[in-house]
Amino acid sequence: MQRIRRNILLSIMLLVGTLTPLSAQNARALLNQAKAFFQPLPDTPPAKSDNPLTPEKILLGKMLYHDPRLSKSGFISCNSCHNLAMGGVDGLPTSLGHRWTAGPRNAPTVYNAALNATQFWDGRSPDVEDQATKPIENPIEMAATESLVVARLKSIPTYVDLFTKAFPEEDNPITLVNIGKAIGAFERTLLTPSRFDRFLKGDVEALNQKERKGLSLFISKGCVSCYLGVNVGGKKFAKFERGADLGRFAVTKKEKDRHVFRVPTLRNVALTAPYFHTGDVWDLREAIQIMAEKQLNKKLKDEEIDAIAAFLESLTGEIPGEALSLPTLPASTPGTAHPEF
Amino acid sequence: MQRIRRNILLSIMLLVGTLTPLSAQNARALLNQAKAFFQPLPDTPPAKSDNPLTPEKILLGKMLYHDPRLSKSGFISCNSCHNLAMGGVDGLPTSLGHRWTAGPRNAPTVYNAALNATQFWDGRSPDVEDQATKPIENPIEMAATESLVVARLKSIPTYVDLFTKAFPEEDNPITLVNIGKAIGAFERTLLTPSRFDRFLKGDVEALNQKERKGLSLFISKGCVSCYLGVNVGGKKFAKFERGADLGRFAVTKKEKDRHVFRVPTLRNVALTAPYFHTGDVWDLREAIQIMAEKQLNKKLKDEEIDAIAAFLESLTGEIPGEALSLPTLPASTPGTAHPEF
Repeated sequence: MQRIRRNILLSIMLLVGTLTPLSAQNARALLNQAKAFFQPLPDTPPAKSDNPLTPEKILLGKMLYHDPRLSKSGFISCNSCHNLAMGGVDGLPTSLGHRWTAGPRNAPTVYNAALNATQFWDGRSPDVEDQATKPIENPIEMAATESLVVARLKSIPTYVDLFTKAFPEEDNPITLVNIGKAIGAFERTLLTPSRFDRFLKGDVEALNQKERKGLSLFISKGCVSCYLGVNVGGKKFAKFERGADLGRFAVTKKEKDRHVFRVPTLRNVALTAPYFHTGDVWDLREAIQIMAEKQLNKKLKDEEIDAIAAFLESLTGEIPGEALSLPTLPASTPGTAHPEF
Repeated sequence: MQRIRRNILLSIMLLVGTLTPLSAQNARALLNQAKAFFQPLPDTPPAKSDNPLTPEKILLGKMLYHDPRLSKSGFISCNSCHNLAMGGVDGLPTSLGHRWTAGPRNAPTVYNAALNATQFWDGRSPDVEDQATKPIENPIEMAATESLVVARLKSIPTYVDLFTKAFPEEDNPITLVNIGKAIGAFERTLLTPSRFDRFLKGDVEALNQKERKGLSLFISKGCVSCYLGVNVGGKKFAKFERGADLGRFAVTKKEKDRHVFRVPTLRNVALTAPYFHTGDVWDLREAIQIMAEKQLNKKLKDEEIDAIAAFLESLTGEIPGEALSLPTLPASTPGTAHPEF
């Protein structure tokens, strides 16, 4: 019932967006319209009830995030594909993993990922804590096993100490689940406030006129039916047939999920080319046109694309300083299991 | 003549080290002895006359150092193999490069590398500026070409701007040589002052008794005949037959250079396992024993190895904060040449 009411509300808002000419909209009205769809980033990292965020855990998570010893080869870390210096992605069509294997899908950004309702393009993981454990054991990504990684970490006294501090109530804290919790805790801090957030908080001048026009079009054309919420995406699933990838069907085996994907966040989208799960479109303008035609059955004019692109560029956020400070990783010991290529 | 005099001096110092029992040496005498072989790190980065260090150039160099778009695949950066979070190395026996190709030699640390008299295990490069350009074009490392890399950088406005600022007098600043100069400038800042430097500057308590015993043995056993100077190594060449690698012979084609290698720095050696150009020894103590037997024809007692290892661990330096701050890399543009796997 609540859902139906929300959908009616959304429909009315979309209609308003469509009918009201831009010239008659002032920035304040646009802000009110936008507030029905979007929320600014929270001021503090969103925590998960069973994974309280502590400085010790966040530090450990950052170290693990950067540590290639979580991979069988000792060459690939989380940061290899979700590079904090590059908008949280690798800039590749699809990521390279163990033995130079190209994976099936484009790497989503780690920035603000904690705010997505589900993780992975097919939404098969509920949160960043769970997600973080998966590439470690994926044979075409980091190709390790829990026993290998746990043994490596246990052989390094600094890690033993840090796990004890991060999980003080556990007798045996070095587990894959806790590796995921620590990395997830770190990832929850990776929020990138943007000018759009300032706009949503009331500073209408934080977006210039072209960007506001783009936002208005983003709403009126219906992009917002998928890309909404605090993460401007990351909430819903949508059918997007592009390439052979069956998307969520592989998870649920339901016909309705054929070629269905979790809608990605558009935060920092200007930094995260190439686009789509296929990673085969390199130009944001082209991606906008494709989405309009394929998903909304609309052909956008060049100046509409320009304005929407300008709005999307306003979603490029400030990378938190902590994300840009590298940890120093403790040395391996003679007992540390060796890299295996 | 000066060289002969220096060699006589070295011989006398070695003799003194051998004959004087540790119990009779006080720390101050050891310091004086050590000063004949070693110098503390300079307080400011060592500049090269044709590559003045400017903040703009160092920043550009840091960005390039972390940018995987200098590789053909877009997956490998300087930092992939010379990881600033891991003692400036990759922790692998030999490094992985383009298409998962294992290279022939272990990656030397980038920390303090600017102080080495030559670069690479075979000394084929005179300085870090020249060295930095080589892996970019090496087909089993980054596998790019100058034209590819220059075209990529020219397609990214932020880089065009940064090169102009870093090389203000040049009309066409984006070249492989200047890429090397910028990366080299950054690398020159990567000095890691250690407790041994404090010792060399007169604070004899900066090393504890065991470490001082190790230093004394390091001198008296003759390790210091190769590992000396400001970088505790990095100056000389020495024959070290291990594996099939002919070392410097491949560069000079001179018989005397068969299995000859540039002596590596021992700074941060406790962080840079596995050891030797072969990267096949994982335990510092084992590496010490092998070197003593093979290079000095001496069998060390366990407590001697322990003491020397303790001394070497005192060479683990402080990683400069700047080395541990990631840059944010500018996004590619639709005109940027794509990654090629």
